[in-house]
Amino acid sequence: MKHKVTFCPDDKQVEVEEGENLLRAAMAAEVHISASCGGDGTCGKCRVIVEKGVVEQRPTSKLTTEEIEQGYVLACLSTIKSDLEVRVPPESRLGKFIEREKAPASHILSAKGWEEHLSSWQRRPPIQKYYIEMPAPNLSDNVDDLKRIKRELGKEHGLEAEVDVDLSVLKYMARVIREADWRVTVTLLENNSSVKIIKVESGDTAKENYAAAIDIGTTTIGARLIDLKERTAVAQASNYNAQASCGEDVISRMIFSTKRDGLIKLQSLVASTISELLMKLADKAGIKFSDTSCLVLAGNTIMTHLFLGLSPKYIREAPYIPTASDFPWIKAKDCGLDVFGETYACCFPCVASYVGGDIVAGVLASGVSRSKKLTLYIDIGTNGEIVLGNTDWMVACSCSAGPAFEGGGVKHGMRAAKGAIEQVRIDCGTCEPMILTIGQTKPAGICGSGLIDALAEMFLSRIVDQRGKINVELNSPRVREGKHGPEYVLAWADETANGEDIVVTEVDIDNLIRAKAAIFAGISILLESTSVDISDVEEILIAGAFGNYLEIERVQTIGLLPEYPFEKVKFVGNGSLIGASLGSLSKEMLLEAKEVASKMAYLELSADNKFMDKYISALFLPHTNVELFPMVMKELKNR
Amino acid sequence: MKHKVTFCPDDKQVEVEEGENLLRAAMAAEVHISASCGGDGTCGKCRVIVEKGVVEQRPTSKLTTEEIEQGYVLACLSTIKSDLEVRVPPESRLGKFIEREKAPASHILSAKGWEEHLSSWQRRPPIQKYYIEMPAPNLSDNVDDLKRIKRELGKEHGLEAEVDVDLSVLKYMARVIREADWRVTVTLLENNSSVKIIKVESGDTAKENYAAAIDIGTTTIGARLIDLKERTAVAQASNYNAQASCGEDVISRMIFSTKRDGLIKLQSLVASTISELLMKLADKAGIKFSDTSCLVLAGNTIMTHLFLGLSPKYIREAPYIPTASDFPWIKAKDCGLDVFGETYACCFPCVASYVGGDIVAGVLASGVSRSKKLTLYIDIGTNGEIVLGNTDWMVACSCSAGPAFEGGGVKHGMRAAKGAIEQVRIDCGTCEPMILTIGQTKPAGICGSGLIDALAEMFLSRIVDQRGKINVELNSPRVREGKHGPEYVLAWADETANGEDIVVTEVDIDNLIRAKAAIFAGISILLESTSVDISDVEEILIAGAFGNYLEIERVQTIGLLPEYPFEKVKFVGNGSLIGASLGSLSKEMLLEAKEVASKMAYLELSADNKFMDKYISALFLPHTNVELFPMVMKELKNR
Repeated sequence: MKHKVTFCPDDKQVEVEEGENLLRAAMAAEVHISASCGGDGTCGKCRVIVEKGVVEQRPTSKLTTEEIEQGYVLACLSTIKSDLEVRVPPESRLGKFIEREKAPASHILSAKGWEEHLSSWQRRPPIQKYYIEMPAPNLSDNVDDLKRIKRELGKEHGLEAEVDVDLSVLKYMARVIREADWRVTVTLLENNSSVKIIKVESGDTAKENYAAAIDIGTTTIGARLIDLKERTAVAQASNYNAQASCGEDVISRMIFSTKRDGLIKLQSLVASTISELLMKLADKAGIKFSDTSCLVLAGNTIMTHLFLGLSPKYIREAPYIPTASDFPWIKAKDCGLDVFGETYACCFPCVASYVGGDIVAGVLASGVSRSKKLTLYIDIGTNGEIVLGNTDWMVACSCSAGPAFEGGGVKHGMRAAKGAIEQVRIDCGTCEPMILTIGQTKPAGICGSGLIDALAEMFLSRIVDQRGKINVELNSPRVREGKHGPEYVLAWADETANGEDIVVTEVDIDNLIRAKAAIFAGISILLESTSVDISDVEEILIAGAFGNYLEIERVQTIGLLPEYPFEKVKFVGNGSLIGASLGSLSKEMLLEAKEVASKMAYLELSADNKFMDKYISALFLPHTNVELFPMVMKELKNR
Repeated sequence: MKHKVTFCPDDKQVEVEEGENLLRAAMAAEVHISASCGGDGTCGKCRVIVEKGVVEQRPTSKLTTEEIEQGYVLACLSTIKSDLEVRVPPESRLGKFIEREKAPASHILSAKGWEEHLSSWQRRPPIQKYYIEMPAPNLSDNVDDLKRIKRELGKEHGLEAEVDVDLSVLKYMARVIREADWRVTVTLLENNSSVKIIKVESGDTAKENYAAAIDIGTTTIGARLIDLKERTAVAQASNYNAQASCGEDVISRMIFSTKRDGLIKLQSLVASTISELLMKLADKAGIKFSDTSCLVLAGNTIMTHLFLGLSPKYIREAPYIPTASDFPWIKAKDCGLDVFGETYACCFPCVASYVGGDIVAGVLASGVSRSKKLTLYIDIGTNGEIVLGNTDWMVACSCSAGPAFEGGGVKHGMRAAKGAIEQVRIDCGTCEPMILTIGQTKPAGICGSGLIDALAEMFLSRIVDQRGKINVELNSPRVREGKHGPEYVLAWADETANGEDIVVTEVDIDNLIRAKAAIFAGISILLESTSVDISDVEEILIAGAFGNYLEIERVQTIGLLPEYPFEKVKFVGNGSLIGASLGSLSKEMLLEAKEVASKMAYLELSADNKFMDKYISALFLPHTNVELFPMVMKELKNR
């Protein structure tokens, strides 16, 4: 249910979902309110008066009884329950604010959106459970246990295919079915034409069948627990890939893998990260750890190789050949995961050395491969991968962006987790920021989307110039010379989780500019090499493990994307994770993934000098050639 | 090439193959010659004079130059090279001999016979090797290594099926193909509809592709190395199953398996026996150990369970249910075999708890399942399994015979290996034996066929009576009271390999009589329960790991088989091993084995009181009811 919120005295309106946070609604309406504690309620600055309508408030000591009677609330602690008229009193207002064109509110596709989008797809999970009740054997019905199970599967569930079985299941099966008094649940792995019994459990556990979809990112590993029976996601978790200790990007990981025991160490590090996530998912969802029978993983080609324990040696050397780009189903424990022996895993197929299963998963999940629309699919992570095409043809390329988008290599960078600053507004007069954190707690750091927001705001409020240099001459305590060069203070020590100032440094900005330049250059080359003009593109989809509040205006402001109509850009979130989730729900999807992978052509940028030219031109805000960004320049002028 | 040998003065003739041993030819002709050293030439008693024709002789010191000039040879050291006329001088002749009806010479089907018999079968081994030469990759042909291999397999060998791959192969593949300069041999496992890459080797090794066929007997394990390229057997070996230390028969093994670590010990014992045999086979054939990619095993249901590490607990308890009777392809090392990780193994499907893969293999190999002829297939081993039927229907039963037929539980019993007495003739006047050993060396013991021969001869020469008791009143030094009861001396200490007398004891005879009685009772029940008279049976096939010279007359003399026309009985040797060999040569055969197993009905004897009655009646020589054996009784009378 949507509600209209009107802010006075600016008379700005915004439509938001019921339950939205009032401070976030103000941000969306471009109403600037003092707010420096990230939404925790501790600074008490975001006082507003609700003149009409209902909000639900978390308790606060920052308002007196009298003030409460007058209708004062703290915006950051208020949840919208109806249409509202809200007055922002002078003491809460930041000074000048920036007028900007706004993208439509529908620009983020939620997971639910994808599910609906994909409603026509067959949802038959590759791993399924079947409950059977068998007659006990006797001298005249004395077929063996396995045949008895198969007979019942055929009778009760119409399974007619040749059913194979794991030797390890045979080892315990006889005992389990007798203890269970001939009532057992059989887990089957259905892969192409073959069907295999991978688990036999006592009693009816058919409802407890879970898969974990896992996005193996170079910097961050995301995981989602899927209830295969109910076809819903029941828990989500993510963590940094522990391999980061061996190198920040894929190149340094590959170099590490060639060292003594390097490959083994890398595999065991990623396995430990995933194992921990699996336990966390089970805890969060309150399920038995052993009920996760299936892992579907999507990662770039190097991450996939390292997960499987395959040396990426020849990916690094010209002509950059992976060992495989299509992978067999395996027992998850064979990759060093701390899981039950019956858990099976499958990795999404890859396209080439630098376009991996994460991209295939994202393209598949976002429907690019089924659409006639000419689409530009951009996955923003440590590696930026870009796909251009539709159901008829697809070309992909890859460029190294570094970990900045995931908060890596950034002084106070962090994952998009609780406490991460994900939205930033800066008053262009006072340089005072207004910040919101994930979970509305005290800020602990800044995530990728917060960083993009911060840089865009700093650029528009002239705290940084086109070259990304911080203007230390500005008359604001927030702009200062830090230990390692100029920096901007986003949050003061007394309002942060760890009691330190949270800053954005010039080095951070430099890293972010390099990252966005790589992506911009990749897009340019891909368009040029296919003779497609950006205006011919019918839709842009942006994937990446960002917070939920990345906005297309900000992305364009820093020049990550070419200027392009806002309404035709959609954020798809972690496309790789969504694709992996859908793969766990549908064996048809896994088959289609193979088709997508084999259909996609790969453009090798390392063999292309033009890429370096484009990259260097993009190392400015928004770009060396400002004519490419008329709207951004107009906004800058307007401020 | 066949030659006719005429023995004077008896004027007996026999036709034998060129190269046959002259002493054996005498045995075949029912000519009795003194011979007590097993064919080693050390006793020097088997002197004969070659009056016409050519023999090849091994040198001997037992003949003077003068004697040699006179045409004397030692029969046991002479190989027949042409038609012969041979005179047996009085000093070499044993006294009275027994006249008997003879079976035709063609009663033993050689391995070659089977091969011809099966010529119409598709010989496409389940494990095949393909040599490919790939173009090296470059920037414009940069598909991954696995796809490159598959592409070449498709192009050069027309393999179009979906090809799966072992994760372990992916781990080393990239390196191997580069070291091999893109020329490799790929080993594929083709199982039903699926095809899997299980090995990638440098260079062209397509010719070096071997399978080991293995008969896992309760007492003896037989193994044969098959050259899959040439489709020939290149080596053979056998040994006692080391599990024997945990119990002689399947019942005691099953009991042992329920003890602490019992199952693990039994599996590791059979694995060690098989591992040693595999090494022996490789040594004998002079091949690399790693070139054996495939094991096809056939064993009874309990042996198969123990090999796979499956508990036989529920086979032992009513209603006697195996865990499985159809088994997946597995990595051989997963069963504890000391083999390369790439070696795959498959076990023949079983019918029921007491009719196993050995019987399925034998029935398949002997063509029973393809023939319209009503056939009685009898596998004689520690368990005796009997199958009656043809291509339309088959009924099987099983009875425990104990290890006597394989030389187990017999004082001087041994496997049918070098030095084992395999043929025995006894002069019914003097009680002097004439013996031949396998390999014609000094006797080391007596194998199953030798024991049957010995008992038949002892019975006909009245050394033992109908109850199996030795007549110690006989006036012969060979018949005596031993430490543990009456015994008959087959070979004196000075002529044996270990310097001990080799004897047949009354206990040995008792064991053998129990064994033969079990088989006879099983046959009787099977015929009765299907309302088939023995005269309706069109062919009897006898399988078992006997020496090559077991004769149907002897088998009937001791009452193991009902009386039946000799010419319709054939010995098929180790049917299980032949079936396993053919399975390794043809995936079609493995599929057909499943059909045979599912077609065969099982008759449970333990639920049948009549079996015990029949068994007790058969605990005599040839039987309590002598009317069932008119020919044997006539012969006994005639002696």
